[in-house]
Amino acid sequence: MVTNPERRTALVDAAIDVLATHGARGLTFRAVDTEAGVPTGTASNYFANRDDLLRHAAERIHVRVAVDAGEGTESDPAALLTQFMRLLLHRIADDRTGWLALLELRLEATRRPELRATLTTALRENLEANVRGRREGELPGDDLTTVLLYYAMTGLILEHLTLPGVLADRDLDALVGDFVRRSLPET
Amino acid sequence: MVTNPERRTALVDAAIDVLATHGARGLTFRAVDTEAGVPTGTASNYFANRDDLLRHAAERIHVRVAVDAGEGTESDPAALLTQFMRLLLHRIADDRTGWLALLELRLEATRRPELRATLTTALRENLEANVRGRREGELPGDDLTTVLLYYAMTGLILEHLTLPGVLADRDLDALVGDFVRRSLPET
Repeated sequence: MVTNPERRTALVDAAIDVLATHGARGLTFRAVDTEAGVPTGTASNYFANRDDLLRHAAERIHVRVAVDAGEGTESDPAALLTQFMRLLLHRIADDRTGWLALLELRLEATRRPELRATLTTALRENLEANVRGRREGELPGDDLTTVLLYYAMTGLILEHLTLPGVLADRDLDALVGDFVRRSLPET
Repeated sequence: MVTNPERRTALVDAAIDVLATHGARGLTFRAVDTEAGVPTGTASNYFANRDDLLRHAAERIHVRVAVDAGEGTESDPAALLTQFMRLLLHRIADDRTGWLALLELRLEATRRPELRATLTTALRENLEANVRGRREGELPGDDLTTVLLYYAMTGLILEHLTLPGVLADRDLDALVGDFVRRSLPET
């Protein structure tokens, strides 16, 4: 197994592009080599098999859009939470390919138990990291705030990325602010 | 164009099965004929083209899982809204194929402008019907209640149908009840 980290990342990014453009069924080592512009056989030197490559793609998608706690500039807790949710929405909208690839992976997971197990672990950790992050950080609300916002943002992002016209006449930043305010417990 | 309504519906249901199993790329008139167990050429007699069939599939998916206002038995407005949301979740989980087919259609819509326009109209009407339904009916809350719940349920359903293990140790009916309570404005 070759371990040039930069080339490995470039191959995973190419796999994400292939997933978003051609779907999970179009994802072959050969298609990834072509997308990355490397000689045929390169991807198969870096990944044990197709499921290994899909697993790396799922992890990489989350890394690409991650919002770092250090990016928050608001001092009011509710304003800070709103800022994080808006940053997440914009980052995912700017990396549309990554999120659409994750959606292809979700659908492929309904047919492939091994991928389903891998993705379940990754997404479960993602949700739990959000819950822990609020408990340990400066963010307002309770566990329900986090879970409600997590799924409302998931639904909103699904709509905005696949059928943007449904919400075209709404101010998405304002809507995210409304979601945050309503998700907080009564005081 | 042939117009035997029962056969037409059977063909649309077969198309939904093909979408969920083989993805949008697998959807051909021939695959639908095979899935429906009818002679080759039948589907092409019922639908003008592939986009016409996809449009009918999108409409049919919503009809299959629709919750009728008459199904509500709770008299307390918040309990009634919770009952509707739980009915919706269970109906969609029981018709997993339909919702997964809709997800395939959403992804296909990112690549096909004509399908995107059709689906946008259908999903926009779906959201607006929810907003109108609350305004005109016995349901509690305000427009934000409806939109927040609509997207939180969308995200929850996406998770539950593609990666059920993420929420396996949570009581989904209880979570839906929590979502409803929190989505209502402070009183």
